[in-house]
Amino acid sequence: MTEAGDRWQWFRERRLPAELVHLDSAAAGRSSVATLRATAAYAEREATVGGYVAQAEGTPGLNEGRAALAGLLGIPALGLAFVESAHAAIEVLLDAWPLADGAVVAVVSSEWGPNLNAFSRHGLRITELAVHGDGLLDLAGLERLLGGDPPALVHLTQVASHRPLVQPAAEAAALCRAAGVPLWVDAAQAIGHVDTAIGADAAYAVSRKWLTGPRGVGMLAIAEPWWDRLRIHASDLQRDSQPAGTGPVWLLESAEANIAGRIGLCNAVQEFRSAGPAGIWQRLAQVGRQTRQALTDLPGWAVLPAVGPSVAITALRPLGGQDVAATRARLLDEHGIVSTACATSRAPREMKGPLLRISPHVDCTPDELNLLRKALIALG
Amino acid sequence: MTEAGDRWQWFRERRLPAELVHLDSAAAGRSSVATLRATAAYAEREATVGGYVAQAEGTPGLNEGRAALAGLLGIPALGLAFVESAHAAIEVLLDAWPLADGAVVAVVSSEWGPNLNAFSRHGLRITELAVHGDGLLDLAGLERLLGGDPPALVHLTQVASHRPLVQPAAEAAALCRAAGVPLWVDAAQAIGHVDTAIGADAAYAVSRKWLTGPRGVGMLAIAEPWWDRLRIHASDLQRDSQPAGTGPVWLLESAEANIAGRIGLCNAVQEFRSAGPAGIWQRLAQVGRQTRQALTDLPGWAVLPAVGPSVAITALRPLGGQDVAATRARLLDEHGIVSTACATSRAPREMKGPLLRISPHVDCTPDELNLLRKALIALG
Repeated sequence: MTEAGDRWQWFRERRLPAELVHLDSAAAGRSSVATLRATAAYAEREATVGGYVAQAEGTPGLNEGRAALAGLLGIPALGLAFVESAHAAIEVLLDAWPLADGAVVAVVSSEWGPNLNAFSRHGLRITELAVHGDGLLDLAGLERLLGGDPPALVHLTQVASHRPLVQPAAEAAALCRAAGVPLWVDAAQAIGHVDTAIGADAAYAVSRKWLTGPRGVGMLAIAEPWWDRLRIHASDLQRDSQPAGTGPVWLLESAEANIAGRIGLCNAVQEFRSAGPAGIWQRLAQVGRQTRQALTDLPGWAVLPAVGPSVAITALRPLGGQDVAATRARLLDEHGIVSTACATSRAPREMKGPLLRISPHVDCTPDELNLLRKALIALG
Repeated sequence: MTEAGDRWQWFRERRLPAELVHLDSAAAGRSSVATLRATAAYAEREATVGGYVAQAEGTPGLNEGRAALAGLLGIPALGLAFVESAHAAIEVLLDAWPLADGAVVAVVSSEWGPNLNAFSRHGLRITELAVHGDGLLDLAGLERLLGGDPPALVHLTQVASHRPLVQPAAEAAALCRAAGVPLWVDAAQAIGHVDTAIGADAAYAVSRKWLTGPRGVGMLAIAEPWWDRLRIHASDLQRDSQPAGTGPVWLLESAEANIAGRIGLCNAVQEFRSAGPAGIWQRLAQVGRQTRQALTDLPGWAVLPAVGPSVAITALRPLGGQDVAATRARLLDEHGIVSTACATSRAPREMKGPLLRISPHVDCTPDELNLLRKALIALG
């Protein structure tokens, strides 16, 4: 084990022993024992005093978690709403944002497929932003677009799901702000992975990936200038129960929810902050470099290069027509290695074929990467 | 303790000791230790093998749970989708059902407020069904309406939230079916409480109340004749990942979700079936009668009569201008009794003022009801 790897074994020690080689944090990270306990203890409290008495007890902790998550997303605490997933978040945003029917949303070619489906379904027209040959946003092109015929909205997925691609979200945010065009950021793969406080007008993310919180929890963050312009569709009952001191974004939060999972996420984000975000981001960048290096010249597979700053997502393209879903299944069944087969519907404007995704967390060891390399060679 | 109460103490023995007198199952029931353990054990499995490997392992159990819940709602297993809440379910239904803009939905005056908000928000026009003086659907009036100028949709909340009111859902379903008008049933307060297999075209419900499953889990059930007429808005990615042997309703299920909670609900519904639904329904009817009897002639409060078959929800109307929210808070803080203050936005077409709701589960004892009576007298 490298010295760098050794320094991160605390992460593994805080978790249950893995039964498999878990190289799949971009799908779902492994929650810590403390996060599992916080979630379960809260659910026990619900059963002991009732769901809503428990929720009242949990409110200070939920507010701390909201503030911490809002801070990670560069938004004031009152701008953060818990929802169920990134998909739920974009649906809420599309319902609430003041957008005309047929308004134009500009995206890069690597945009997450379900977001494209959501834009179309909500009556938006999609236009493509200029990108460099590697898929990275062309900032000069963005500036020209904003100065000429600007879209109603720019949407960036900060860290792509299917390959190591990090968009220059902070630079894009500065250009959009100067032009008065709102920028939304899908930070589902970015939160807990890279710096997400980049000045977006709206950002949304999930609990379960790099923050290693529970599944079924997502979050939506909206910058203050937009709060009073939102189209809020809350029921009268929800308006009647709004706590003093909250703002319009509170009304976007799902009222009836998996509060236990939110409590678990609050614990996970506290662990993340205690461990030091900058150190984790650096280590995840290193893990990505180590993964791509360990898989260099792998027979039958091409390692896609990192575009933008390094992240812990690595993508392998089959060179010999291998069935990626079958490879993923055999890695799991025959070698005990957890990975993801990325179908082209994840990024339909860019992907030409499926990719095998490898996404370890900070505790990844060289032994695990060697195991993966050997397994892929054995599978042919 | 009465003999009847004694026979139901197994329910209490399977739960953590209550710290409070929990008379609030219509808000959220107390989950069993086995349900809490199933939920937590699944979350541990996610942390041990990864979220999606765990989900694959859990699929047979989830399918058994779907079938059991579908059976309770009188729908084939493939017609059931897990969602996050009753609110999420009605939103999905309103998006998916083939309804013209401005179509008319007919409701009773006691309809759940947030449902009315959802209908309006989705462009439906609301018309009121004829009811008797006590709020019960006038079946002859429904028959006349269906034979004359029928609405596009009839919607019934089978068991009201704010008072003991059970609509004749089975009789309404038969009339609607004969007229070819779809009936949707909000079974949020009905599932696990009364017989919900009543022949609706669509029904939706929640985990956390009478079934005592986890919060953050709801379900939607759609009858087979509608499956191929639904307007499905699933993303291409979700369509790509649809398992063989599932139908269109699977695409209405939220793909990224609190699977641990769904596993917990599957355990809870299995416990419910093992205990015997008919016996639980009878006991809850008895608990409601015992509650209303224990509160008869309570100074300062009127006990609202049960309308339709008895259920375990009791509503108290303040006779002396008492602040119901304050009474609810003092019952909790000074007497350790959990109840709900029902604001008029729960049933805005019917409620004239707030009501205090008492909703024990099968394990309710006469001592608890006496405590409640004494506490309310002490609070004045």
